[in-house]
Amino acid sequence: MHLYRYEENPLITPNDVPPHHDGFEVIGAFNAGVAKFQGEVLLLLRVAERPMSDDPNIVKAPVWNPETGKVDVYEFRKDDPRYDFSDPRVIKEAGAERFLYLTSLSYLRLARSQDGRRFTIDDRPFVYPSNELETFGIEDPRITYIDGTYYIYFSAVSPKGVGEAMVSTTDFRTVTHHGMIFAPENKDVLIFPEKINGKYYALHRPVPRSNGRPEVWIAESENLLHWGNHRFLFGLREGKWDSARIGGGAVPIKTEHGWLELYHGASDDHRYCMGAVLLDLNDPAKVIARSERPLVEPEADYEVNGFFGRVVFSCGALVDGDVVKMYYGAADTSMACVELKLDEILDSLVKV
Amino acid sequence: MHLYRYEENPLITPNDVPPHHDGFEVIGAFNAGVAKFQGEVLLLLRVAERPMSDDPNIVKAPVWNPETGKVDVYEFRKDDPRYDFSDPRVIKEAGAERFLYLTSLSYLRLARSQDGRRFTIDDRPFVYPSNELETFGIEDPRITYIDGTYYIYFSAVSPKGVGEAMVSTTDFRTVTHHGMIFAPENKDVLIFPEKINGKYYALHRPVPRSNGRPEVWIAESENLLHWGNHRFLFGLREGKWDSARIGGGAVPIKTEHGWLELYHGASDDHRYCMGAVLLDLNDPAKVIARSERPLVEPEADYEVNGFFGRVVFSCGALVDGDVVKMYYGAADTSMACVELKLDEILDSLVKV
Repeated sequence: MHLYRYEENPLITPNDVPPHHDGFEVIGAFNAGVAKFQGEVLLLLRVAERPMSDDPNIVKAPVWNPETGKVDVYEFRKDDPRYDFSDPRVIKEAGAERFLYLTSLSYLRLARSQDGRRFTIDDRPFVYPSNELETFGIEDPRITYIDGTYYIYFSAVSPKGVGEAMVSTTDFRTVTHHGMIFAPENKDVLIFPEKINGKYYALHRPVPRSNGRPEVWIAESENLLHWGNHRFLFGLREGKWDSARIGGGAVPIKTEHGWLELYHGASDDHRYCMGAVLLDLNDPAKVIARSERPLVEPEADYEVNGFFGRVVFSCGALVDGDVVKMYYGAADTSMACVELKLDEILDSLVKV
Repeated sequence: MHLYRYEENPLITPNDVPPHHDGFEVIGAFNAGVAKFQGEVLLLLRVAERPMSDDPNIVKAPVWNPETGKVDVYEFRKDDPRYDFSDPRVIKEAGAERFLYLTSLSYLRLARSQDGRRFTIDDRPFVYPSNELETFGIEDPRITYIDGTYYIYFSAVSPKGVGEAMVSTTDFRTVTHHGMIFAPENKDVLIFPEKINGKYYALHRPVPRSNGRPEVWIAESENLLHWGNHRFLFGLREGKWDSARIGGGAVPIKTEHGWLELYHGASDDHRYCMGAVLLDLNDPAKVIARSERPLVEPEADYEVNGFFGRVVFSCGALVDGDVVKMYYGAADTSMACVELKLDEILDSLVKV
């Protein structure tokens, strides 16, 4: 597999993004949705901002307040035995798996480029928390273009759980809100770019509590807003690179051999790679082939080191002839791009 | 509050139901959906069958096999330290919260009555596991009647998680399958019996893993099959009877003051009661009032003692003038009925 990582990588880092909130620092500009619009490449960045702290014993938790429209900041002492601060991204109750707060607030902000390598970042957020299901922020957008409209969907995070919400735009200026399309716990939704046999399809990744694991499902819709006929699609594989956690990545790419889905998988030691799965062109609920080994692994410095290291996580790719330009979040910190050959990806897949 | 528990209670017990599977015993005939059909009261029972065992050191787990259409039985030794058998309903991995297997297999079976008190039970299952998402069984049906069709929806349980599946019937002879309408983890779905301002509505109870709690949400649909615009509706209340777990119960009852939803709540010590919440007639996403204390608590012997004691759990009620006949599962074992006065229920609710 020939990988061409751009010389300009990382393309966007937190240093390139001025914070939107006073007293905050940008710690992540990553996991961007991707679109082509009016000749430009748009990256819809997940920007994560953290309240600054001059006391290393204090951990802060930002929460958007629907009443005031502002962000409240809660403070926790690191030596408070009631809490677990071991994962820098969250504050947990000691001894529990569930999180109570996030340590940063994410929202979506546009970056624009003529060449797909050098980006100019908008001054202001493009999509910002707007209701009680988004008080902990919105994360990891994907963008599906259908008939003149860009559908943008993302994780909506709040004390009520993590679900998937959707907005749409035709001009990347104004957005229409469509509410939560997949109830908690769900994320990594990918809407196919066209109807298949009269129906819209989406991949999604529910995370049930009582049993079951974080695996990929498929759903159907007539209107992109309401989803049903949920079916299990593909799962974790013990001993492989995708043994602990998987989820859709880029919007499915139509090829003559099937729908190509670039998806992420994590191993038990939290190393996130990208691989691929091929779904039947006429019935995307049928898995044809899948990566035995990752296509892209965290190897470059900006992928190995960062806020949460050893992560390669794509939310979108552009296809240019036989070239797949996969944009991806690196180490939960920055954006990068790698080019792969479509035929090499397809050749690498193993029939299931 | 005047409660009239039928003298005939429990109306149906496991002893009344011959097992469908050779070598199995019926341990539960409970949590039935309720409908009126051709002048009869129908209870669509959840029948739970358990493989018989003559060795008290062996716990058995029945799993329906989609390949053979038969039930396989797995055996576990009670002294195997890898497993946790403390909850009689499930087999867990030791030290983990998730379950690996159920100790019984549930399916749906009809009981018919002229007077709503004495029931005749069908010889065969009415809805039985039918796909890979139902291999651990199907549970807790509810029935919504809309325009000549009975929509029957229930928990579909498998190693992939617990979701809500739906079938429909017009004659209670043949059913049409509609797949899973709410992805894991979700149960306690209640579909409103008519469109409200042009849309169908449903209550549902997602159980997210990373954060959030088992609380009641509302969703919208145009066709009853695909659901979206998920919103949080009402939650747990610390220190009250519904502090640990809540979920919809009976199909919402239309009153002049609003939609009356009889719902179940459990306290931290797993005592299940029934209470009520009143939702706005024109916008059921608005909560008007709610029970401070339960309407019905487990007090009778058949409610306190059973396979899983101290449980009153309704999946359906019939309204006759000012009388609400609430059918309910008692102690995860039997079916019973209690009559309440509609105006007394409404008077008991406290504005929120």
